[in-house]
This record gives sequence, structure tokens and C-alpha cells, in this order.
Amino acid sequence: MKILAIDSSGLVAGVAVAEGDTLLAEYTTNYKKTHSQTLLPMLDEVKRMIELDLSSLDAIAVAAGPGSFTGLRIGSATAKGLGLALDKPLIGVPTVDALAMNLYGAGGYICPIMDARRNQVYTGIYTFVPEKKETDAGMERIYRLHAVRSQYVAPIEEVAETLNGLPEERDVIFLGDGVPVFYDRLKELMKRPFVCAPASCNRQRAAAVAVLAERYAAKGQMEASRDHAPEYLRPSQAERMRQEKEQSCAKVPPLEKQEKKVNEDS
Amino acid sequence: MKILAIDSSGLVAGVAVAEGDTLLAEYTTNYKKTHSQTLLPMLDEVKRMIELDLSSLDAIAVAAGPGSFTGLRIGSATAKGLGLALDKPLIGVPTVDALAMNLYGAGGYICPIMDARRNQVYTGIYTFVPEKKETDAGMERIYRLHAVRSQYVAPIEEVAETLNGLPEERDVIFLGDGVPVFYDRLKELMKRPFVCAPASCNRQRAAAVAVLAERYAAKGQMEASRDHAPEYLRPSQAERMRQEKEQSCAKVPPLEKQEKKVNEDS
Repeated sequence: MKILAIDSSGLVAGVAVAEGDTLLAEYTTNYKKTHSQTLLPMLDEVKRMIELDLSSLDAIAVAAGPGSFTGLRIGSATAKGLGLALDKPLIGVPTVDALAMNLYGAGGYICPIMDARRNQVYTGIYTFVPEKKETDAGMERIYRLHAVRSQYVAPIEEVAETLNGLPEERDVIFLGDGVPVFYDRLKELMKRPFVCAPASCNRQRAAAVAVLAERYAAKGQMEASRDHAPEYLRPSQAERMRQEKEQSCAKVPPLEKQEKKVNEDS
Repeated sequence: MKILAIDSSGLVAGVAVAEGDTLLAEYTTNYKKTHSQTLLPMLDEVKRMIELDLSSLDAIAVAAGPGSFTGLRIGSATAKGLGLALDKPLIGVPTVDALAMNLYGAGGYICPIMDARRNQVYTGIYTFVPEKKETDAGMERIYRLHAVRSQYVAPIEEVAETLNGLPEERDVIFLGDGVPVFYDRLKELMKRPFVCAPASCNRQRAAAVAVLAERYAAKGQMEASRDHAPEYLRPSQAERMRQEKEQSCAKVPPLEKQEKKVNEDS
């Protein structure tokens, strides 16, 4: 199965093309340009370099959130556009799962943390569990990504408490853009040995999205392009403000003067 | 420390730029083009995309072998050329070590296998061992890549026998271009559970070369560009033939008719 995978859920822009056990191409950048400046030019570059016929793809995979709201919308719009134009199905891969997949076969508890602002992180807790898989070459042993806790949003203190309370004697391996933000706090909070992943595997990789997407596709977890929507995990700033406003309007006399609120994030 | 890393030791062409814990860019292709068609255009593309000023680099890292003889010469020549032109030191990273680094933190014995033809593989056996490292942020826990057996060349039967005899109850995780070549043979030979790494981490990655290079540099393991040479691990076909010819010439009367030999590989 030939998959084009896209990840623009964080600061990283990533494009990968994988077919079975072969990564045909991967292009990743983590630079101050916006995804609208990088993602499609990178895809175009890869397409040219490996002479990729887009119609030969079987599916488009996309890091489906959580993450930067704008980043997710760019990734989702790009994947949906390609899927509709090429008439290919979409495979949405949870961002935090894909991050954990960077550490294939790791012995520790894997804990991706993405900075969600307001002292929160998008996170999840994972291990790799051996299991048998039926393949063309017979029964094969693989590592399945097991979610001890599926992706969620929480304050870093709550995450550290959960990690400290886990039953097995394993290290924790942290990765993601939340690591530099919360590193000092983690040093205070963590009662269990932990390691931070190095540059080669500590941020989003479209290749990991592609590998998980193939596993989902094998279980039939695909969707039509028009049905795909990102998973934000929590309401946007605009939605929160609207909700707060509606609640306060319901409580106070309608003509009372309202305080003007200022955006915390964009 | 800002490092440009190059890997053309196998079919994969890879370029990466890393600075500390940040992978600024990585571009990998595994396609039927030759490295002379891909490597420099890929570097040029990355340079343009992340507006890289080559003079801002601290060192050039290169997958220093073993591997394809032609591939190693292209990588080495490119790295030496850049190093000389930019007046930057070189860091040669053993190819098999860099492959093992793809599986950071893995719980199993890591065994990269690269097809060396003539029923042999370039291989090595690795684990990750936690250790303390002094950093700007204080003492930090990292995983050091530990060579149970440093890279070597051997028949696949001998490698399997060594792996079967290892003391600890761990899986073996195979990766590298030798996996599809020797998979059926490994199924027959292996008496210990094994797993093959997925597309996202089963071939050379320049990012892994960059991460190991930074660790070597911290220990002062750098060299001047003019001093660098690849590590082939065994003589080339041409060298072997010359040696055989010289030995047979020493044994037979000098004027006896010699059989013409045919190249096995190029």
C-alpha cells in the first residue's frame, strides 16, 4: 500500500511517501517559515525527486490532531484537497500516537508532550507490546503501539503524577515540543527516571504517520476525504470566549456593561 | 553545535541539519536514482528551504562505512569537499552504529544488517544503556549506544548463531537493507524472538548520523577533512582479484597461461 503522509500539527512540517516496508522519501523541516510556505513546496519537491505519480497512491494520511489549530487546518485542508482531487481515501492518525511511534520498540513508557499553552500539554502514555501479525510471509512478530492512556490534554503536574504512579519499573521517555518548555518543571515533578529523546526522533515525523496509517488501513480505518475533520481535543480560544460570553450573558441583566476581553492566544 | 550530516552508504540518500536537540531539516530518499543525481540537489534544496548559511555550520558528519563502495566514496568526497571549502572539521560515524541509533531506547538487541553480497552482511549488535551526562541544564539521563559487538562483516549464519547465544532475555530487532534479502534465512536460523523495524526507521537516516556525530564531537572525536577516509571493512572486488592474482602468480611458472577472471560485482 502506497501512502503519502503529511504532518503539520506543530512547528515541524513533514511529508513522507511509504510503500510497505520501504520509505521512498521523507522531508522534514523545523524552521521559522509558516506551513503555507513549506508544506506544498516540500511535497512538490519530493514528488519531483522520486518521480511520484500521485495517482499511484492508495491513500493520503494526515496527522489529525491535537496540535496547533492553524497547523492542523493546513494539514487537513491539504490532505482533503489531495484526497478529493485524486479520489483517494484519507487516514487520520492521532498526532500523539504518531509521535510515540518515533520510538519504535522502546523499552520505557513513552510520553509525548506538546505544548498546549495555558500550562497544559497534549499528551498520552504508550508502550510497545509484541504481537503476532499475519503477513504475506506468514506469521510475523511486530510491536503494537499500546496506549496506556490515549491522547488527552492536561496540566503538566497531572501528567507527572500519572507517570509517577505507573506500575512497571520502566523509565519514561519524553519527546515533543513540550520538552524544552516543561523540562525544568519535569525535573522537579518526576520521581521516576526519565530520558528525553534526541534530535533524530523528538519531533513529528511524517514517516511515523505513514507507518501507523498503514496499520489502521489494514483494519479498515479509512474515511472519505469529505468526512475528515481534525481532532482539536479542546475548544479554540474563540470558541471558549464565545461560550464564556454566552454564559455570562445568561446570568447578568442584558444591558449591563460588559468588560472587553483580550485574546490570550491566536 | 550545528551539524550537517550526510548518508549515502546504501541505497538511501540522506541529508540532515541538526543543532543540539533540534532537527532543523532532514531529507531522505530511497529511489532508483544514483547518489550523484540526488545527494547534492537534496542538500541544495534543504539549504534553500531553511535559509542555511553553510558557514554557520560547526562540522560536517558523514556515514563513514561500511556500505556500498561507490556510495561511501560519494558521501566521503562530498563531505571532504564541503569540509575543505568551508574549513570545517569532519566527523565520521560508523554506518552500522548510525543505523542502530534509529531505534533510540529500544528494549531489544538491535542488529542492523546490510547486504554485503557473497552471502555476507555488514552488521553489529547493540543495546541502549542509561547513563548520566553533564549538560548545561545539570546532570541528565541519556541512553548511550552500547556495542555488544562493534560493526563487522560475517555470513548471516554466523550472525544468527551469535544472536541466539546472547545472554539476556531480549528480542532482536533487525533493520537495514539486508532484512528483505535474508528474512527467510533468518526465520530458519533464529531461535530467539525477533522483530523487523518498520519503514519509518529501517534504513539509513542522516538525522541519526548527526546525533551520534554530536556525541563524538563532545569527546573530541573529530578529524581534519583531508585526513578522512571511509571504512570499507573488507577489500573491494578489484583488490581481492589483484591479491588472488599476485598469490597465484607467485605459485605458478611466470609464463604459464592465466585464466581470465570475470568480475562478480562492480
